[in-house]
Amino acid sequence: MTNSINSRFLGPKGENSALLSDLISTALADYVGWRRRYQPRDPSPIHDGDLLDTCTDRGSIKASFLELLGRLHGSVPFFSGHYNAHMLSEQSIAAQAGYFAAMLYNPNNISSEVSPVTTILEIEVAKQLAEMVGYDPQRSWGHLTSGGTIANFEALWIARNVLYHPVAAAGAAKELGVDLSVSLPDGSRARVRDLDLWQLLNLGSTAALDLWDTLWDCAARPSVEDALRARSLSTLGYQDYSRRLSAEFGDPLPPGVVLATATGHYSWEKIVRALGIGANQLVLLPVDQFCRMDTLALWQKVVELSARRVPIMACVAVCGSTEESAIDRLDEIIAVREMAERKLGVTFQIHADACYGGYAAAITRGADNERQSAKQIRAALGDPSWPTEEWVRSVTALEKVDSISIDPHKLGYAPYPAGAFLLKDRRARELVAVDPPYLVPAASDSSDSVFLGRFIFEGSKPGASAAAAWLNHQTAPLNNSAHGRLIASTIAAAHRFHSNLASPSFAPFQVISLPPPDINVVCFLVTHPSLTSLDAVNTLNESIYAELSPNRGNAAGYMISRTRLTSPAYDGAVPAVLTALGGDAKSYWTMKGSEGIVMLRATIMNPFANAERPDYMGGLAAAIRDAAVRCLNKPATVRPPSLASA
Amino acid sequence: MTNSINSRFLGPKGENSALLSDLISTALADYVGWRRRYQPRDPSPIHDGDLLDTCTDRGSIKASFLELLGRLHGSVPFFSGHYNAHMLSEQSIAAQAGYFAAMLYNPNNISSEVSPVTTILEIEVAKQLAEMVGYDPQRSWGHLTSGGTIANFEALWIARNVLYHPVAAAGAAKELGVDLSVSLPDGSRARVRDLDLWQLLNLGSTAALDLWDTLWDCAARPSVEDALRARSLSTLGYQDYSRRLSAEFGDPLPPGVVLATATGHYSWEKIVRALGIGANQLVLLPVDQFCRMDTLALWQKVVELSARRVPIMACVAVCGSTEESAIDRLDEIIAVREMAERKLGVTFQIHADACYGGYAAAITRGADNERQSAKQIRAALGDPSWPTEEWVRSVTALEKVDSISIDPHKLGYAPYPAGAFLLKDRRARELVAVDPPYLVPAASDSSDSVFLGRFIFEGSKPGASAAAAWLNHQTAPLNNSAHGRLIASTIAAAHRFHSNLASPSFAPFQVISLPPPDINVVCFLVTHPSLTSLDAVNTLNESIYAELSPNRGNAAGYMISRTRLTSPAYDGAVPAVLTALGGDAKSYWTMKGSEGIVMLRATIMNPFANAERPDYMGGLAAAIRDAAVRCLNKPATVRPPSLASA
Repeated sequence: MTNSINSRFLGPKGENSALLSDLISTALADYVGWRRRYQPRDPSPIHDGDLLDTCTDRGSIKASFLELLGRLHGSVPFFSGHYNAHMLSEQSIAAQAGYFAAMLYNPNNISSEVSPVTTILEIEVAKQLAEMVGYDPQRSWGHLTSGGTIANFEALWIARNVLYHPVAAAGAAKELGVDLSVSLPDGSRARVRDLDLWQLLNLGSTAALDLWDTLWDCAARPSVEDALRARSLSTLGYQDYSRRLSAEFGDPLPPGVVLATATGHYSWEKIVRALGIGANQLVLLPVDQFCRMDTLALWQKVVELSARRVPIMACVAVCGSTEESAIDRLDEIIAVREMAERKLGVTFQIHADACYGGYAAAITRGADNERQSAKQIRAALGDPSWPTEEWVRSVTALEKVDSISIDPHKLGYAPYPAGAFLLKDRRARELVAVDPPYLVPAASDSSDSVFLGRFIFEGSKPGASAAAAWLNHQTAPLNNSAHGRLIASTIAAAHRFHSNLASPSFAPFQVISLPPPDINVVCFLVTHPSLTSLDAVNTLNESIYAELSPNRGNAAGYMISRTRLTSPAYDGAVPAVLTALGGDAKSYWTMKGSEGIVMLRATIMNPFANAERPDYMGGLAAAIRDAAVRCLNKPATVRPPSLASA
Repeated sequence: MTNSINSRFLGPKGENSALLSDLISTALADYVGWRRRYQPRDPSPIHDGDLLDTCTDRGSIKASFLELLGRLHGSVPFFSGHYNAHMLSEQSIAAQAGYFAAMLYNPNNISSEVSPVTTILEIEVAKQLAEMVGYDPQRSWGHLTSGGTIANFEALWIARNVLYHPVAAAGAAKELGVDLSVSLPDGSRARVRDLDLWQLLNLGSTAALDLWDTLWDCAARPSVEDALRARSLSTLGYQDYSRRLSAEFGDPLPPGVVLATATGHYSWEKIVRALGIGANQLVLLPVDQFCRMDTLALWQKVVELSARRVPIMACVAVCGSTEESAIDRLDEIIAVREMAERKLGVTFQIHADACYGGYAAAITRGADNERQSAKQIRAALGDPSWPTEEWVRSVTALEKVDSISIDPHKLGYAPYPAGAFLLKDRRARELVAVDPPYLVPAASDSSDSVFLGRFIFEGSKPGASAAAAWLNHQTAPLNNSAHGRLIASTIAAAHRFHSNLASPSFAPFQVISLPPPDINVVCFLVTHPSLTSLDAVNTLNESIYAELSPNRGNAAGYMISRTRLTSPAYDGAVPAVLTALGGDAKSYWTMKGSEGIVMLRATIMNPFANAERPDYMGGLAAAIRDAAVRCLNKPATVRPPSLASA
């Protein structure tokens, strides 16, 4: 096996520094050689006199550079197994070296004209990710982004355009005198002209995109373009669009909503606000005991919205929630949609926010990259009890959602910036395409490699990110004998740590945890018989967090983060915790103005987390107990600042 | 002087490779040493057996890495003075080495908890940029973005929230029983309760933000928050917001518009579409003969919109247009706004899209970083005729606009990704703030360094970008004895090239150019007495472009790009060109379906562009003439794909 974890990373003591150093200097020498071969007959603009001058300059650059190096020593040691705070860890040597090698060339992956090499690498990376999650590489499309927020933004930006497209298409067809037919969610076919607004907003993405295709085939290009443009939300803007709907269809429907798991990242609020959808239209769904979307509640919400004729723009499921690494039951969410189509004539697009957990899909692929059953995976990993059938069904169902965001800079172990966006049906990208005024139509019709900028939100992006992800995937393929094995080992470590927390060695303290995580983020709290109120328990845990927070510096060097579970978002997740806490916990939880439950949070994603020596998991548990002892009778410290994602 | 251009860059033949190589290996060794000092008593998780195993692995990583290096050789030589196509050039050694040094630590500048060092560097960089453009570093605020599109997006996202804030504030004040007063654009003061919708939408940003401050002082925090939230567009979304305006104020006003120079980047269309403002609300203003916004037309448009009671969300001026590097007369735009406030009681926010040209403001600063007059600058640069008074007035007026986007990865000579967004009045960022649910209020009130993610759109970003820009600014300060001098030298080269094009050596060809550029992008076309139609001239220029386009490979190795001027956007810019062309040019230009004028475009931003040897400018002119000779009687080739920004 060419992918042992131990040689993929620099190592906590720089064990593999010779390799990284070799790759870096090879890249630099190779790059300088490439420069020298370009126009070798040119004289040099840098004359001997200048070279003498540069002694001073080198001094100046070097002095500032050494200042930078010195200041960087104040950074957080993400690389270490002692660091288990946020979703940040080691980078692979391949990703680091790949980034550096391409960064020297500084390609901009907005267009192949300025990134002929790295645009191709980006397309290869998108295909590798598509294959991992189960999308058809021919029908799907993907690209890298600066991070998860932009990928999520693109998902909703596209979903909105897909949702409203049939309304524009119906109007355009009428204007052009074209009689179109379309599939309805219940499988029947109907003439578009016979559909009312509610039906047009419930066709689903495939039918909407079929309408897109059909319309272009029916009439001359410019007239279709004009007719669609005159009716699209993108052109009209929300204010005029609403008036038009009102004029054309009578009383307009309520604004469309976005359903999202209550554990969803705070960026969703930012996104619905910016897009003009409005925070009121972000409907948070309750979670179950595993912090996964409560799919029964989803069904009830769909029924209720349907009765009120509220269109659903998209349902956002989470694959690896930021706080708990919970994986929503995507298979059940898909089933709810099927039921809604059959029974209610209602449908919606599904986006999987798999920024954190998407790479875990590598666990479902065997060494030949084929999908494996839960049993086969357990055999491959040599783990008799994990993954469960349900886990595999959830992750496998990624192949059925309309779009996915997935961050190479999280469980891909690549440096920032590297998010990715995947679209199941590549046609949907056309609905957000913007042509620069001087791009000739012929070019816009040709292959992906031409001009990515037409379909994406950002206007420039480093080709180096693509090179990093590509080299990463080449050297550690996205299956359970390579990259998936690494992620599985961190999950095993997280489960081991979760068990450690229940050990009697914590006595007289008691640790109360959320269930074993779906991936590798463990949430728990420490309590003590002397603490009789939830407020006091919260204070103890805030103090423990303060002792073990990054930048604090404590002898054992272990670092964790913390989160806060609040009502009503977490009502479904906390009953067992409240029962275990006893005392006033239940009344405190529901009290108005309650600050909820402070939970300590360990993100176990270090590549060496499951090592026997050093026993990071044992060390972390011991550090938590030691901090608890120190904090128990200490007055509460000032709460340190927290942070969001990372 | 410690900032000679010649030692700031690697050089076309890698002349300074020893310096870059030294910095890179110093950074790597220093970084490995930092790792080793963390928890030195830990055993290593990488055992001897593993190290043996890694022989195979190193083979595999190395093999894939060498494949990557080989493929990268197909990249475009942006570093070379032969490359004058897109807005892409050499990176400084400081930026390259700074990026690499910080990338090893992989900080995420979303929060100081995961980037204690580089967040501080980012704040320093934002202050350096603020000082360069003339913002008060205490009252302004800025941060890095992944690029110019995101910075422009943030500008409009904030502008929209500022525009509508007084409407929400007025409603909130009424609910809370608070009597507020506010300054009107004409300088008088009024009670907010007496203002109608039109007046509320024409208060201007300072008054709107004063209202924000005042309201929080008048009532308890949670009630202000609830009252504002219930009325904000962010919360309600456009659809319900429009209904509310309609219910509260009678017939609602037309949707707010965004005014932009017709030369503006195509990303503006993407942005107004995504935000829900709508492409119809993007009003393009005509340009003058220098491709700058026609400020008389701006005034007329403001008068017209005011008569129709159309609110102006923002006016977007360009400082360095993508195609021509034109700098809008910002000073005149400010004057138009003042006149509108005085005469019409109408105002609007101004955003400067200075993604390309913003760094040219360094030319207006002397070695002491103080602002200089045009005369002082000419003396400092030793140029008797440049810059003009008008140029300096335009660039100096940046200090008066509400927000600015400016890309270190363009004229900052830093690697991707590095855009930046600057806000003149830092209070405006509060209007888009989103708190993660578990961020305690105390923390959100403290210093910038805590949690940048609260105020910005992106959710993660490389601290390495901040380190690169910081080291760049440290080693080449933003004044005309250092970084500004470099930019001025490229402008001098562009002017020299512009003169070359008029030389008789092109005979029998004739070169027709736009006026000398405001920065360093030269647009021109080649014609020949035998060509009697504009269509034929266009074909010749397309052919020349094809010969000199990147990725083509031509003996002289020179590369340029091309653009297309079309009607009506460029009606104000082309009269001289049409006259010089003669023949059917004027009728072709106005013909329906006309493809406009193809112009060749040279972006002269290479640091060595103004060198005497090699004489890149002379070489480029010669390469263009040679290509013209070859293309004149050749049949038209298939048009190669173009691209947008870069």
